[in-house]
Amino acid sequence: MNDTVKSIATLLKDLDGILIFPHINMDGDALGSSTAICLALRELGKKAYVMINEPVPKNLDFLECSCTTDDDKVLDEVQLSLLIDCNGMNRITGREDAFNRGKLKGCIDHHMSKHSDIRFDFKRMEAKSAATGEIIYNLIKALGVPLSLDMANCIFTAITTDTGNFQHSNTTARTHDIVGHLHKIEGFNSKTISALIYDRKSKGAMHLEAEVLDKLNYYADGKIAVGRITQELLKRHGCTMDESEGIAPRIMSVDGVEIGVLIKESEMNVRVSLRAKSYANMERVASEFGGGGHIMAAGCTFTTSVDETEKALVPKLIEAL
Amino acid sequence: MNDTVKSIATLLKDLDGILIFPHINMDGDALGSSTAICLALRELGKKAYVMINEPVPKNLDFLECSCTTDDDKVLDEVQLSLLIDCNGMNRITGREDAFNRGKLKGCIDHHMSKHSDIRFDFKRMEAKSAATGEIIYNLIKALGVPLSLDMANCIFTAITTDTGNFQHSNTTARTHDIVGHLHKIEGFNSKTISALIYDRKSKGAMHLEAEVLDKLNYYADGKIAVGRITQELLKRHGCTMDESEGIAPRIMSVDGVEIGVLIKESEMNVRVSLRAKSYANMERVASEFGGGGHIMAAGCTFTTSVDETEKALVPKLIEAL
Repeated sequence: MNDTVKSIATLLKDLDGILIFPHINMDGDALGSSTAICLALRELGKKAYVMINEPVPKNLDFLECSCTTDDDKVLDEVQLSLLIDCNGMNRITGREDAFNRGKLKGCIDHHMSKHSDIRFDFKRMEAKSAATGEIIYNLIKALGVPLSLDMANCIFTAITTDTGNFQHSNTTARTHDIVGHLHKIEGFNSKTISALIYDRKSKGAMHLEAEVLDKLNYYADGKIAVGRITQELLKRHGCTMDESEGIAPRIMSVDGVEIGVLIKESEMNVRVSLRAKSYANMERVASEFGGGGHIMAAGCTFTTSVDETEKALVPKLIEAL
Repeated sequence: MNDTVKSIATLLKDLDGILIFPHINMDGDALGSSTAICLALRELGKKAYVMINEPVPKNLDFLECSCTTDDDKVLDEVQLSLLIDCNGMNRITGREDAFNRGKLKGCIDHHMSKHSDIRFDFKRMEAKSAATGEIIYNLIKALGVPLSLDMANCIFTAITTDTGNFQHSNTTARTHDIVGHLHKIEGFNSKTISALIYDRKSKGAMHLEAEVLDKLNYYADGKIAVGRITQELLKRHGCTMDESEGIAPRIMSVDGVEIGVLIKESEMNVRVSLRAKSYANMERVASEFGGGGHIMAAGCTFTTSVDETEKALVPKLIEAL
């Protein structure tokens, strides 16, 4: 059962002491949506924080807006723990205790999910929203809080990153309707925000991207393209993994590629991001390896080497074609 | 004096035999806008063609919609020649005679221009429109023609390419309002069109891009980045120069780069594209070398070698910082 945005707004107005949880490996939608609702709650005089336990990606630093904290004890009393852009405990690893402090538990998300391991007191899950930022936009409106420039920047970032700059098929008339309204906020400039998100690549990251794209492995007559980022590669170019943001969509730009894969070796495991151009079901492939996501974009994690990961993955990808 | 969209629509309804002219080196806005209005005029039962004399870029082939022709004699009588996304004879080189066949001459454009060398019977120049496609959208509405899927695709291409996928500062609330309406057209899918525009890069073009970005030359503490595409490089990767589309904006994504330069060696000369991120005046630099353009994006041509071109250019770029 899905609660309405209006009923959630009514409930929020009566609460104070709110911890907000974006998912691990936070992206523009997770952090932007979290900060936007945090700012709106503060505007109503409430104590609210965005709880994180990993560094904010450099290109998203402007989304923090003095909302983020890694201090579990930042609030004496937590009346609500609110999961943003995710719906399971496995998406807030390392923050379980902080989450469990909330007397009430809520969830606002746009990912499909059959069942969650959390008993939510309320939840709003809109699979048809291009970004959780769309739901947050409507929630802030329902709260009666006027959109500030910071909130507009957060929601723009949430939406533009999750829609691939309004190109992905999740983009709808409503998406454009919402962003059209953001443009009416005093001082809003899409270019300013866009430059912060996309135009702060280090020289090393540019070399990294060039090398990954130069060395793509192709399978199935070029319908599958696989890029690989190893720890060695990161070290050689003086980069961290979060600087590889933006490479996955580039892989999709090759003619004939239906499935684009980026294999990322971290110090603990190997993360795989899967994207489809038009018809292959990436959620199904990811779920075979214990991962999840959307039909067109999904992810999973391996504990094998990069080579072994690629070898295990490719046959399943060929089946998905 | 600017004519209203409504008065232009009224005039168009009374005319037949219309030649439409996108500018040379046609882009998504020029061709998409031209084809969209051509389709709308045909919907009204009129004979209309888009007049071109160069090949359509491969990634824009879907915009032709059986409208384009290079045959000056395709119409017995030309009641109107209509310039789209440009306003001077120097932008329709090689098609002057065809243009002059029009008894009436009109212009629909969003570029600023002090004066044109053409005496137009009507013109609509909206510097605040992000793309000429926005004006065409309103014109088709004023004509009372329901937007077909082909028209929607053409207008989406015009707008998304001219706004850098809704990121550039020319993007407005109206831009999103119009594209929101396109999403309501039966069958419209931004992803489908986006994949046609951006995701048909050859493997060779991907290698070309990787190599150019890997070998950028930096000057002035990294404020200037220069990419080079030589004939040797094109040959080695089996590419043509029009496949280098998309590299210039990538150069701007490096942190700290204010001026991004792409030097392109053709068989006849060396063309230079200059872009600024926020403050450097590229039009001024280009004009010192006999070129022109806008403040943020300009171009010029050299007859020297690629090395000599770079050597001549860099001191002037440093002055512009």
